[in-house]
Amino acid sequence: MELSIFSHDHFMREAFKEAQRAFDADEIPVGAIVVCDNKIIARAHNLTERLNDVTAHAEMQAITSAANYLGGKYLNECTLYVTLEPCVMCAGAIAWAQLGKLVYGAPDTKRGFNLLTENKVLHPKTEVIAGMLSEECGEIIKLFFQKKR
Amino acid sequence: MELSIFSHDHFMREAFKEAQRAFDADEIPVGAIVVCDNKIIARAHNLTERLNDVTAHAEMQAITSAANYLGGKYLNECTLYVTLEPCVMCAGAIAWAQLGKLVYGAPDTKRGFNLLTENKVLHPKTEVIAGMLSEECGEIIKLFFQKKR
Repeated sequence: MELSIFSHDHFMREAFKEAQRAFDADEIPVGAIVVCDNKIIARAHNLTERLNDVTAHAEMQAITSAANYLGGKYLNECTLYVTLEPCVMCAGAIAWAQLGKLVYGAPDTKRGFNLLTENKVLHPKTEVIAGMLSEECGEIIKLFFQKKR
Repeated sequence: MELSIFSHDHFMREAFKEAQRAFDADEIPVGAIVVCDNKIIARAHNLTERLNDVTAHAEMQAITSAANYLGGKYLNECTLYVTLEPCVMCAGAIAWAQLGKLVYGAPDTKRGFNLLTENKVLHPKTEVIAGMLSEECGEIIKLFFQKKR
């Protein structure tokens, strides 16, 4: 039996805090955390502007950080919480990491990996839960782009 | 008129040197360079084992390094030479970087981005040249896996 002390909602709120940090830093507000055995082992938010680096998505950093913490590159015992549906790049990284579970918030209808309907990008064993805290996670991104206009 | 002092073959041989460095370091031998105005501005090879990080593909590092050199995150004036067809993750990063030109060596029939036949992963403006120095680039990978058996 899987021991679930904290709920998906609880952890997604932690990922959302990271999105808020991105917002405050004038970055597209996406946040991610990695959880292993009910413990947060990595936290990250989008840093593409500050680092001048298109690869600095929240998920990429969270995966690198979690692997660093665990001392191994596979995250099959981990859950990644991310406030936005991962893009193709991040989904590719999630596949290489053989992630155990992916929980994401708002859908990304323009860049999300689900656009690749013909091909499974993720590892076949990765469980996916979509739409967790979707409204808040989507709203902060809308707000960000409204502010930019 | 585009000024081409060095040929694609020349630059792919430089990427191949990076693949050889990966081989010597017991990493899956894939190498990449980024060229801008006939000048190599980034070099990288696969470091997934040493860094314990699935995201440390040659292309990802080369993109990060090139953007760092240029001080901007878009590589629309750059050519990326990579010895192996990029995977989905790297193709996603190449798309975000709006890369000008992608020149790759050997095909990757298991993990290459061309498996996503139904969807264009790359930016529409990215020119692609496939099969440059394909034999050597493929051979070194075969050799690596033979050595591992």
